[in-house]
Amino acid sequence: MLYEGKAKKVYSVDAEPSLVLIEFKDSLTAFNAQKKGEFSGKGRLNRDIAASIFGFLHKQGIPTHFVRVDGERSILARRVQIIPLEVVVRNVMAGSTAKKLGLPEGRPLKAPLVEFYLKNDALQDPFVSEDQILVLEIADQKTLEKLKNLALRVNTELKHFFAELDLDLVDFKIELGRDSEGNIILADEISPDSCRLWDRKTGERLDKDRFRRDLGGVREAYQQVWQRIQNKWEGK
Amino acid sequence: MLYEGKAKKVYSVDAEPSLVLIEFKDSLTAFNAQKKGEFSGKGRLNRDIAASIFGFLHKQGIPTHFVRVDGERSILARRVQIIPLEVVVRNVMAGSTAKKLGLPEGRPLKAPLVEFYLKNDALQDPFVSEDQILVLEIADQKTLEKLKNLALRVNTELKHFFAELDLDLVDFKIELGRDSEGNIILADEISPDSCRLWDRKTGERLDKDRFRRDLGGVREAYQQVWQRIQNKWEGK
Repeated sequence: MLYEGKAKKVYSVDAEPSLVLIEFKDSLTAFNAQKKGEFSGKGRLNRDIAASIFGFLHKQGIPTHFVRVDGERSILARRVQIIPLEVVVRNVMAGSTAKKLGLPEGRPLKAPLVEFYLKNDALQDPFVSEDQILVLEIADQKTLEKLKNLALRVNTELKHFFAELDLDLVDFKIELGRDSEGNIILADEISPDSCRLWDRKTGERLDKDRFRRDLGGVREAYQQVWQRIQNKWEGK
Repeated sequence: MLYEGKAKKVYSVDAEPSLVLIEFKDSLTAFNAQKKGEFSGKGRLNRDIAASIFGFLHKQGIPTHFVRVDGERSILARRVQIIPLEVVVRNVMAGSTAKKLGLPEGRPLKAPLVEFYLKNDALQDPFVSEDQILVLEIADQKTLEKLKNLALRVNTELKHFFAELDLDLVDFKIELGRDSEGNIILADEISPDSCRLWDRKTGERLDKDRFRRDLGGVREAYQQVWQRIQNKWEGK
């Protein structure tokens, strides 16, 4: 094992050093892991959802680390050097930023808002400005522009992906990494753990907010997302 | 009275509606006013220091709201519409940003870092990115550029002003406003309340950190700054 995160384990692959095996755990965490939970089958669901999304994004020309599913709840992925930033894109105001700015949750934004958070558990993943990222020398100005542009392209594609499932993509978080040739590619996962997904008709939340806010029906929400993906996108 | 802040009162001026009278209070606050204190003569000291600094900046061609001192601890100033942002410039890492980013206090920055905080007591003056300011429609991109450029010009001049007093300007906070013609000018105050000033020889802090961190000698530090200003700049 190379690394264990809050929701994933990453293993090296003996036969192929350029790949890693990423196992999706059944655990759920929120508020910098102060709140913890799990449900059986969650790892498998998120693996299936993430694999489907990565496959879709690949077809749209967006570079990702995803190679193929492997086993019960793992994927094979290209090995990357993770850039220690969480890149968030918001289409509708919600969550920590709504609270911080004193804006009502649910207000649509005139343009997508890109935010950066430091990926650092000890510092509690603080929100940072681009100028602060430059001070930390995590990325230079050119790389920041690339990250933003890639995040906005992912947003455009994901909005379409979820609209076809009658889901509004409120916001999402991605992580990016550099492959062996220095290309910046999408890494980590995209799933109901890392997106806010609101049903277009009912407004129902089909994402980790059900866990964060003790709304109940967490498993059912994740299953519902996967069911809709299967009905619409799988087998096409 | 038009407005009472944590350290100042602002009055309208009957004879001249384009001016306000700003009275400097003896109170000291920190950590969003969770910590409170005062010392007699503090309002007068800060008034004198701020007036001297505004006079200096004016000579360097930087537009400010300062007109002239008036009475014991007040100034007459041009009436402006305050832009609800606190603009911070850092030359050396310290304070909340050092803590947030996990960087050692005292590390010099390769270039000055400009930061924006929302001026909103109820929200506890949160740190915001430029993109978040655009979402809030507090300023447009062009205005943000103007604010940054003005803050960096103030920094250049202030570094020189304090270097002549054997003080390193670690960081400072300014507020800006729009005058009746829409020009963006420096408002509020610049004083040991809003700057970190470290003695070049001893490293001693001559600013509000003495109060924030219970270091003692708050009054003496403010007096020291004013004494050095008088010796070096006043009467020139």
